[in-house]
Amino acid sequence: MTKVSPLAPERFPDLPSLRGVRLATGTCGLGYKGRNDLMLVELAPGTAVAGVLTRSLTASAPVEWVRKALRGGSARALVVNAGNANAFTGRAGAKAVERTVEAAADLFPCRPSTVFLASTGVIGEPISGEQIAAALPALKGALRENAWEEAAAAIMTTDTYPKGATRTALIDGVEVTINGIAKGSGMIGPDMATMLAFVFTDAAIPADVLQALARRAVDRSFNCITVDGDTSTSDTALVFATAAGAGHRPVGSAGDGHLRQFRRRLEEVMVDLAQQIVRDGEGATKFVTITLTGAASTRAARRIGLAIGNSPLVKTAIAGGDANWGRIVMAVGKAGEKADRDRLSIRIGGCPVAENGAPVPGYDEEPVARHMRGREVDIAVDVGVGRGRATVWTCDLTHGYIDINADYRS
Amino acid sequence: MTKVSPLAPERFPDLPSLRGVRLATGTCGLGYKGRNDLMLVELAPGTAVAGVLTRSLTASAPVEWVRKALRGGSARALVVNAGNANAFTGRAGAKAVERTVEAAADLFPCRPSTVFLASTGVIGEPISGEQIAAALPALKGALRENAWEEAAAAIMTTDTYPKGATRTALIDGVEVTINGIAKGSGMIGPDMATMLAFVFTDAAIPADVLQALARRAVDRSFNCITVDGDTSTSDTALVFATAAGAGHRPVGSAGDGHLRQFRRRLEEVMVDLAQQIVRDGEGATKFVTITLTGAASTRAARRIGLAIGNSPLVKTAIAGGDANWGRIVMAVGKAGEKADRDRLSIRIGGCPVAENGAPVPGYDEEPVARHMRGREVDIAVDVGVGRGRATVWTCDLTHGYIDINADYRS
Repeated sequence: MTKVSPLAPERFPDLPSLRGVRLATGTCGLGYKGRNDLMLVELAPGTAVAGVLTRSLTASAPVEWVRKALRGGSARALVVNAGNANAFTGRAGAKAVERTVEAAADLFPCRPSTVFLASTGVIGEPISGEQIAAALPALKGALRENAWEEAAAAIMTTDTYPKGATRTALIDGVEVTINGIAKGSGMIGPDMATMLAFVFTDAAIPADVLQALARRAVDRSFNCITVDGDTSTSDTALVFATAAGAGHRPVGSAGDGHLRQFRRRLEEVMVDLAQQIVRDGEGATKFVTITLTGAASTRAARRIGLAIGNSPLVKTAIAGGDANWGRIVMAVGKAGEKADRDRLSIRIGGCPVAENGAPVPGYDEEPVARHMRGREVDIAVDVGVGRGRATVWTCDLTHGYIDINADYRS
Repeated sequence: MTKVSPLAPERFPDLPSLRGVRLATGTCGLGYKGRNDLMLVELAPGTAVAGVLTRSLTASAPVEWVRKALRGGSARALVVNAGNANAFTGRAGAKAVERTVEAAADLFPCRPSTVFLASTGVIGEPISGEQIAAALPALKGALRENAWEEAAAAIMTTDTYPKGATRTALIDGVEVTINGIAKGSGMIGPDMATMLAFVFTDAAIPADVLQALARRAVDRSFNCITVDGDTSTSDTALVFATAAGAGHRPVGSAGDGHLRQFRRRLEEVMVDLAQQIVRDGEGATKFVTITLTGAASTRAARRIGLAIGNSPLVKTAIAGGDANWGRIVMAVGKAGEKADRDRLSIRIGGCPVAENGAPVPGYDEEPVARHMRGREVDIAVDVGVGRGRATVWTCDLTHGYIDINADYRS
């Protein structure tokens, strides 16, 4: 039906089975016909969980549930439906959450506080939990270890392809696996976990340590992407550690030396998923990497980078293959972070465009224009005040975005 | 060439001549062929001036000049060119400003600090002041009292029609006139004077009082509009009071009782111009009024209103005539201001859509959808926490915006 994004990876990666995780998909009829829209994940007893949630002040009912459940730090089941976000659904929305949690807790059985939920889709449509509850027993019967791709597909909304990533890491000489799936395409904005992402590992990591690792990795991945700057009511990133592959020494803190590789690989999985979300940005035809250096701090660098990545004028210029770097200057100026206009420099596709606050002498637009006609656009900006740096990923703003969003519901 | 916006007023209003102000237009060849792109305004000796400028940290050379010149509080000439913004032009840009100021100061003659400038157009193109300097003498010879419409036309860039507004006010029983012209269509963002606007009155108002009046009126007009949330490097709003029509008592402070009507009318002129800018928003097909009530403060109300008005998802839904109020909820949530999700209410075109954080019982979408198919869309949101209120104006986001901006320079 929908054409796959031209920026999509060639295929879904091979995610290995992961001890302590089994998945199943099915239909609950809450939004989509003719495709699966419900995912159930069973996690081994003793699984630790951590997460980062939307900062939206109108967060969905499932987000509010997860915020509470995370305090317990342990997970036994994850239920995700696509098609209805169960956001702004008032008391009925909270009731639907209770009903779903109860049904899942009865199924395994487990404590309600170990059942995690996420819902994505239309906001403000009333929802009852009955349809999900009724569908769960069949899904439990179908649980298996290698259903990653179909799980990633079942949670899609306007996504044009399922998103997955995998890495292995050594902890204390023992190999552990990290698998992640995600969905997201529109309503992707900065400064929070902007989408659904579920990452699983068979490492044995206590919930508080996992939380610190998740926070850091989310800040360097999902919090560095933007499609349209809009923040979902449902953004949820959860990390589950089943401990089922754990021959390794106990982990004490997030700074533990033998977690070094795990930290890096966890971040890689999240960056991979985050970039896949941008590559599936609604209407996207170009993938844009913005490297921001010379800022007062890391945070300032990210804010300036996102101001560039969120500017409709920058994004439409990129869509048109127009090397209109004046708009990048404009976006730097509006970010509200320290920048020295007279030391600002800009490179596009590696070519110097501006230096010390003015166009480079004898500036030749041709190689820059050629780079901008490609699918991958690199913009490097140095704002000349400090050592803060960040990388931000975004896409262009095209007619396709308008087509998709001018009539999403019909 | 460009089609006039479907939201344009029927015609340019009749602006009367205004004692102490004479205008002329001509060409300086800095951007446009076949149309005027230079405006000169002569102000009577003794004219007071006040202004509000962009908060961009990469402000243009003319903006930096005006920031200094405003300290003097008096104006004798205003020179505005369209086609080149003289922004991010380094030392050459500052030199071009000096050259233009010098040429205008020699012409009248007057002190350089009483010469005001604005430039609008492409960012980052080198500029010399010679072309403007060479064009000024002819313009001086052509100065006349009734050139408002051609002046408004000469400062346009992507605008599809010239923008003007006029009111009269009584001060102390004496009638004074307020005339304004403005330009703006893209790169229109919140929280600063986002465009060029020049307002003239023959009232006698000291510069410090004029500054207070201008600040207040800008906050309630130009700071309440958004087209794309992008902040120009060149935003400039200036108010000139020639004192040439002043039979009225001296004015002591901005709070003076006999300034009451003048304050209101000045705000009306600016709101009128601000709304005309939104009606000329790039690609706009619908004019949207967002009334935000129940916020913690006026500032919070404006921020939430602008978050709604800036959301690409809200704006594309409006373009599609889609009553997707869930996106309004999303935008309220991302504004970062206090809002009570469970007391939130939304009306579209006067029809209740949501109340107390949930869709209204028996919600009938048909009258709402009918309203949204029209050219004027009214959205009223109450966030249920306080008494702060604000009105914000915006337009929809359409294919036209992409067409205009994907290749502005070619």
